[in-house]
Amino acid sequence: MKKIINDPAAVVAESLRGLAVAHADLLRVRDDPALVVRADAPVAGKVAVVSGGGSGHEPLHGGFVGPGMLDAAVPGPVFTSPTPDAVQAALAATAGPAGALLIVKNYTGDVLNFETAAELAAAEDLDVRSVVIDDDVAVKDSTFTAGRRGVGGTVLLEKITGAAAERGDSLDAVEALARKVIGQVRSIGVALSAPTVPHVGEPSFDLGENEIEFGIGIHGEPGRERIPAEPADALVARMVEAVVSDLPFSSGDKVLLFTNSMGGTPQLELYLAHGIAERLLAERGILVERRLVGPYITSLEMQGISLTLLKLDDELTQLWDAPVRTPALRWGI
Amino acid sequence: MKKIINDPAAVVAESLRGLAVAHADLLRVRDDPALVVRADAPVAGKVAVVSGGGSGHEPLHGGFVGPGMLDAAVPGPVFTSPTPDAVQAALAATAGPAGALLIVKNYTGDVLNFETAAELAAAEDLDVRSVVIDDDVAVKDSTFTAGRRGVGGTVLLEKITGAAAERGDSLDAVEALARKVIGQVRSIGVALSAPTVPHVGEPSFDLGENEIEFGIGIHGEPGRERIPAEPADALVARMVEAVVSDLPFSSGDKVLLFTNSMGGTPQLELYLAHGIAERLLAERGILVERRLVGPYITSLEMQGISLTLLKLDDELTQLWDAPVRTPALRWGI
Repeated sequence: MKKIINDPAAVVAESLRGLAVAHADLLRVRDDPALVVRADAPVAGKVAVVSGGGSGHEPLHGGFVGPGMLDAAVPGPVFTSPTPDAVQAALAATAGPAGALLIVKNYTGDVLNFETAAELAAAEDLDVRSVVIDDDVAVKDSTFTAGRRGVGGTVLLEKITGAAAERGDSLDAVEALARKVIGQVRSIGVALSAPTVPHVGEPSFDLGENEIEFGIGIHGEPGRERIPAEPADALVARMVEAVVSDLPFSSGDKVLLFTNSMGGTPQLELYLAHGIAERLLAERGILVERRLVGPYITSLEMQGISLTLLKLDDELTQLWDAPVRTPALRWGI
Repeated sequence: MKKIINDPAAVVAESLRGLAVAHADLLRVRDDPALVVRADAPVAGKVAVVSGGGSGHEPLHGGFVGPGMLDAAVPGPVFTSPTPDAVQAALAATAGPAGALLIVKNYTGDVLNFETAAELAAAEDLDVRSVVIDDDVAVKDSTFTAGRRGVGGTVLLEKITGAAAERGDSLDAVEALARKVIGQVRSIGVALSAPTVPHVGEPSFDLGENEIEFGIGIHGEPGRERIPAEPADALVARMVEAVVSDLPFSSGDKVLLFTNSMGGTPQLELYLAHGIAERLLAERGILVERRLVGPYITSLEMQGISLTLLKLDDELTQLWDAPVRTPALRWGI
C-alpha cells in the first residue's frame, strides 16, 4: 500500500484538520467525537440538516457543509459508521426549536447508530426526524445492507433538503421533501479497480485485468455481476438501462443527471461517459434539465463511475438551483 | 488497459462532447480543429485570454473557460500539443481589437506551436502576446522541455489574468500582470503511480511498490529522484522545502497555497497533505491567505499531488477573489 498518510489510524483526523484550515470561512472541525459543523451554527430558527457515515467517500459528507446544504457532517472511520454519541453531538451543535433532519444512507450500522442518536435527542425534547436513502438499483441486499444501498442520490438529497431548510421550511416540510426526493432518485455504479482502505492495507477485492464489477457499492461491495470490459458506449447503455427501467423514467420526464467519479477515474473519461448518457437519455425522450459531473461520492481511489437520475419538477429544480456555498458545491453565493 | 472509452483515437473528441452538453450555459465546443470557446465569445472590447495544450490534464484547460477566466482553450490529443492552426482558430473566435494573451506551458511543442499561431495572427493585424509559464522547481530540463516545466501555477495564472481581462484591463496590463505572476509562483509534484495514455495502452513508467517519484511532471516525466515511500509528514516537508527555498519565500510573505491532486489521489489524502503543508508554512512564518484544494491540473489517473505557492499582494488577492464562472472553478456569480 502506497498512500500519502502518516499513521493509518489517524487518517480521518488529520484529513479533517486540512479541511478545517482550508475552509475556515465555512466550517469548523471538532474532535472527540469528530464533527464538521457550519461555522455559523446553530442558525437561529432553521431546521438543521445533518448527515454522516464512514469516511473515504469525500467530499461526502464534510465537503457539503455550509450555507444551503448541511449544518453538520459526522465522519466515522474509513468505511465505518460514526457512533451514536457523535451523531448526538452534531445535533446538539446545530439543532434548536425548529428541529433537525437526519439523512442516513441505508447501511445497517448507519441506520442503527443514527436511530439511536435520534432517540437520545428525542429524550431531550429535540424534534428529530430521520430519512433513509436507498437509491442504488444494483442489488436488493448486500454486504452491510438489508435492502438497497444509499449512494449517489445522497448528494442530491442533501443539496435539495439543505436549500429547503435554508429558505425557512418547517421540519414537516423538509422531511416530506426528503421522502419525495428519495422516491424519485435512482443510481447504478461500476468499478474498474478496487480501493485500498488505509487500516487494511490491501485492495478490497480482486478484479481481473479485463473485468468490470457492474453494480458496485461505494465500499467496493459486490454488485450484480462481473462483466468483461466493454466499450464505453455499451457500458453506459447498460447503466442507463438499469436506472431508467427501475423507477421507471419515461419519455417526457424532466431529470437531473449526475455523473459521478468513484475517485480514480480521469475527468476525460467521466465527461465522455456523461456525453454518452445524455445522448442515450435523449434517444428515450427523457429531458436532462440539470447536470452534475464530478467526484462527489467516492470510494477512495477506486476507478469507476456512477450514474444517478432524479426526476425533477419545478420545486425540485428551484431548490437545486438555490444558492449553495460549501467546499465541494458552490454557486449563487 | 481498462478505461471507460470507445476508440482510443476518439477519446478527446468524445469527452469534449460531454463537456459541451454538460456546460452549454458557459461554453461551446467546436470540431476540426477542436476548441472550447466561451458561449458569449467574442466579448466586445475585452482582451481575450487563450490557453491550451495536450489533453489528459482536465479540468485544465477546457474546464476553465467562462466569465472571469479563459475565453478559449485549445485541447490537443492526450499529452500532445495542439497544432498552430487550432490555436489560430481560437484567436479568431475570441480576439478583437483589444488583442489576446496566449498562456503557454513551457513544453517544446506548445511553445513552438503557440508561437507560430501568434505570428500568423500578427500577420492579420491581431495584437497577440504570449507568456510562457515555467513554475516547476523540480528539474531544469526534462523530457519535452528546455528549461523548467509549466505545471500547477498555470491554473492560478489563468484565473488571475482572466479576472484582469474581465474587468477591462488593457493587453499591456494583462501581459505585465501575467509576467508578474510567473515571476512569483513555484510548484513541485510527486507521483505514487503512473498514468496510462489511452492510445499507448500501458503505464507511462514503472514505479516500485515502495517508490515515489519526487518532482514528477504532469506527463509522468522523470523528476529529481526516486525516493522510498515515506510518511506524509516527511514527504510534504520535502515538497514544501523544495518550493519555499526556490523563490525563495520568506517569513512574512503572504501566499496562496494550491494543493493539487494529479487525478487518482483520494480527497482524504489530499486534504491531509494540505493540512501538513499549511502547518509547515506557518512554522516558517509564511502566511497562507488563500487556498485551492482539488484536482485542477491532472495527469489522467496518476496518483500523486503537487504543491504550488504564489506570493500574493493586494492586487493579486483581489483578482483571485474576483467572480469566476467555469465548469471547474466558480464563485461570486
